[in-house]
Amino acid sequence: MKAKNKEVAKLLQKYKEIALLGKISSVLGWDLNVNLPTKASEGRAGQLAYLSGVLAEKWQEGEFIDLTQKLKNLKTKKLNIKEQAVARNINLSGKYYWKVPKEIVVEFSETTSRAYMAWQSAKAQNKFSEFSPHLKKLVRLNQIVAKHIGYSDNPYDGLLDLYEPGLTAKFCEGVFRTIQPRLSALLTKIKKSKKFSDGTQYVGEHMNYPINDQRQIAVYAIKKMGYDMDAGRMDVSSHPFTDTLDRFDVRITNRYRTSEFRDSLMIAMHEAGHALYEQGVSEEYSYTPLDGGVSLGIHESQSRFWENQVGRSLPFAKFITPILQAFYPDQLSKVGHEELYALFNQVFPSLIRTEADEVTYNLHIALRFEIENGLVNEKIKVEDLPEIWRVKMKKYLGIVPKTDREGVLQDVHWSHGLLGYFPTYTLGNLYAAQFTQEMKKTIELERIVERGELGTILSWLRTNIHKHGSLYMPSELVKKVTGEALNPKYFLKYIDDKYTKLYNL
Amino acid sequence: MKAKNKEVAKLLQKYKEIALLGKISSVLGWDLNVNLPTKASEGRAGQLAYLSGVLAEKWQEGEFIDLTQKLKNLKTKKLNIKEQAVARNINLSGKYYWKVPKEIVVEFSETTSRAYMAWQSAKAQNKFSEFSPHLKKLVRLNQIVAKHIGYSDNPYDGLLDLYEPGLTAKFCEGVFRTIQPRLSALLTKIKKSKKFSDGTQYVGEHMNYPINDQRQIAVYAIKKMGYDMDAGRMDVSSHPFTDTLDRFDVRITNRYRTSEFRDSLMIAMHEAGHALYEQGVSEEYSYTPLDGGVSLGIHESQSRFWENQVGRSLPFAKFITPILQAFYPDQLSKVGHEELYALFNQVFPSLIRTEADEVTYNLHIALRFEIENGLVNEKIKVEDLPEIWRVKMKKYLGIVPKTDREGVLQDVHWSHGLLGYFPTYTLGNLYAAQFTQEMKKTIELERIVERGELGTILSWLRTNIHKHGSLYMPSELVKKVTGEALNPKYFLKYIDDKYTKLYNL
Repeated sequence: MKAKNKEVAKLLQKYKEIALLGKISSVLGWDLNVNLPTKASEGRAGQLAYLSGVLAEKWQEGEFIDLTQKLKNLKTKKLNIKEQAVARNINLSGKYYWKVPKEIVVEFSETTSRAYMAWQSAKAQNKFSEFSPHLKKLVRLNQIVAKHIGYSDNPYDGLLDLYEPGLTAKFCEGVFRTIQPRLSALLTKIKKSKKFSDGTQYVGEHMNYPINDQRQIAVYAIKKMGYDMDAGRMDVSSHPFTDTLDRFDVRITNRYRTSEFRDSLMIAMHEAGHALYEQGVSEEYSYTPLDGGVSLGIHESQSRFWENQVGRSLPFAKFITPILQAFYPDQLSKVGHEELYALFNQVFPSLIRTEADEVTYNLHIALRFEIENGLVNEKIKVEDLPEIWRVKMKKYLGIVPKTDREGVLQDVHWSHGLLGYFPTYTLGNLYAAQFTQEMKKTIELERIVERGELGTILSWLRTNIHKHGSLYMPSELVKKVTGEALNPKYFLKYIDDKYTKLYNL
Repeated sequence: MKAKNKEVAKLLQKYKEIALLGKISSVLGWDLNVNLPTKASEGRAGQLAYLSGVLAEKWQEGEFIDLTQKLKNLKTKKLNIKEQAVARNINLSGKYYWKVPKEIVVEFSETTSRAYMAWQSAKAQNKFSEFSPHLKKLVRLNQIVAKHIGYSDNPYDGLLDLYEPGLTAKFCEGVFRTIQPRLSALLTKIKKSKKFSDGTQYVGEHMNYPINDQRQIAVYAIKKMGYDMDAGRMDVSSHPFTDTLDRFDVRITNRYRTSEFRDSLMIAMHEAGHALYEQGVSEEYSYTPLDGGVSLGIHESQSRFWENQVGRSLPFAKFITPILQAFYPDQLSKVGHEELYALFNQVFPSLIRTEADEVTYNLHIALRFEIENGLVNEKIKVEDLPEIWRVKMKKYLGIVPKTDREGVLQDVHWSHGLLGYFPTYTLGNLYAAQFTQEMKKTIELERIVERGELGTILSWLRTNIHKHGSLYMPSELVKKVTGEALNPKYFLKYIDDKYTKLYNL
């Protein structure tokens, strides 16, 4: 983009280096997750650490900071909306580099390196005590970070804001207080219903869904969605992810098990949902602070929209059934689209968050939110976590993990020092439902999904969400698109309608 | 490494950033050649250009230059051999950044970007006139670079020295004057011999060598050689290459045609030869100026050694025959190892350098050397190149290309502005023969190759060549290893012996 304001123009010029260093790091990070030879991990860590040091230096350059300060004063008077967003976004992202003392940044980075290794070992051995001292230290460091960044009410707010600008613990509490009882109640009803099928005639170790076929079907689906494979790739990694290496290089990964045909398709649609957002940002924003998705929550709304609102819908089951049968004639020739729909939407309480369905997923997040809020505010002690985890699992999902490996040790996030990240997953689900509700006002969603005319959906997302990149704050965006603030009722209505019908409740 | 000298220690500390930036660029370059989505090329070019700018700045930092100047004066008195080499190598590599004005570096970079695109188009359309204005400009820029870098006799020396420290046009002339008539004469004799087989019963469009099998055989061979696949990878690219992304991340690429079983094996051994050199450098040299192979010529000696001295030998044919037959029972069950040996060593004049055999390969290089020397010294005009090419091809190889695509436009090197690079290919062949001759004094090469005990060979190369990295200059190294300077007689004797016997001359 070309800024009329001279300070903004200067700032954009300087920012381009920051953006370049970020993308270069993404190339190294992508390669680390997809290709890295085992012995190269130390070397790659050194390269990435060097780049993050250079990046921090760029953020901390005197001239750069002076420019951002100048703009803070001009702000609303002289700048147009894009220029204002540039200034705002730089101040948002810069906060961490400007306010948190270097020694804390370094200590944080060193601690997470060690904590991640300890977590891996603790999980493998099912021994929380190996991880707990590291987690304690990371909670303390997060508290210090929150103090430096600042907050008005709850220190946890300072952390939430790093992942979803403007998000507060109070807001999250309201959300979970609304959705948790409704979801728990729904789960209870579903557990009692008859339609509780395990689908073992179609999936399991006795089945064989060749990986090449799974890949072809996934590629077929994401191309239908509009994912541009000339500006991206789909590779394999143990934890699927999306990474933007350039505006025209947005890569996703997938993983395959030959005992399953559903996961790789849903993962592909999920990750392609993230990727479409990145591929759809207005080109003029490339290498500016307006590039890329605006927040984790909005990003997750795009992945969840495609995975759940589209991929796990009855119309999509109708559309994809013949494709699946063509690829898997021996395995799926007898499956009907209604049965397939049910197979894609099996609801049961699971111990593992990443395997959870739409009904139970947010209960896993509610539990994590409460724990994080308690840790940061010193109302929960790290050593009590395994027991607290069991109690809350019992309360929300009705099941209790036998091991910490399937309990408090299951997620990688805390070992990376991420406190305040989990709630954005739930926000993503809520945003997705609210956007869908709005979309349906102008698009016959069910009819076009059934026909596989997914391009119409993408156009709507491009126009209303993607092209703006980080121009609007999440709260502004959701108001602009749907006419109101984020409201959990759309999600609850969607879930109620869908599962009441599906399980004949 | 830890330097005792304080200035060297400081220099190494600063140099580490240069080394890191180089390796980071390698990651981006490797990914560009192996993975890049088509639409991402401009973005990646921008990322690489940015990194090369940062790299140039690091070289040109006042404090860094001051340190190198200080060391120039201390040099032989106070420094140990490693410290001396550090100072020497930095001065060698820094020359380009210190002496060539920035505007020339930038103009060079811009010109090559355009020249490369023009070359691709000119080659596709077989239209030299599209490329010639760019080549003219690149010749002029190379002349300017040579002037700034300095030379005593011939401006071409200034360029040769960039790729092979100490190499001069005079030396090359001597080499080619010695080998060219001998090779041309041998070729004439071979052409007249009876054993001139085309091997069409084993290779060609009617055959099918599955790519997976080819890959497995290649992996088998390079693992036998000692290539560490936990510190590297073998991927696919249109032009095979080796790249060092880190001391423990040395990757090679290969390419496959289902009509052929030989190429991918020979390419793998060639590239793994390069990679073994990089994997074998003493670990203490990581991220110092002593890391990596010392010159293009010595590097090529390692790839050619494994490809030709080992891979194209009769003992290796004996060793690999059962493997090939096991993978390709239908295609190769009747081939004997002598026949296979002949198949791996078919000699005939070809228009394309990269497809040339051991006898004709250096004739292709002689031609390019004469042309480059003529261009830089303004004795040859760019517009006359197509005709000069045809005349020289006729003279050296007895054949004439019908198109410039198969003639002067075939190689990518000049479009990248590389003048002075080609001769290092011939040096590699000569070094390889001389090293082999030396190796045979202590190792029963034929016996161990026949048994596939290639680890013995690697140990010799590690001890004598690899571990030193860039500690010794190429000329020092060859003297240290073989007791004398580079001498073409070893290569000529090797070629004469091998092909006289093979073709019953």
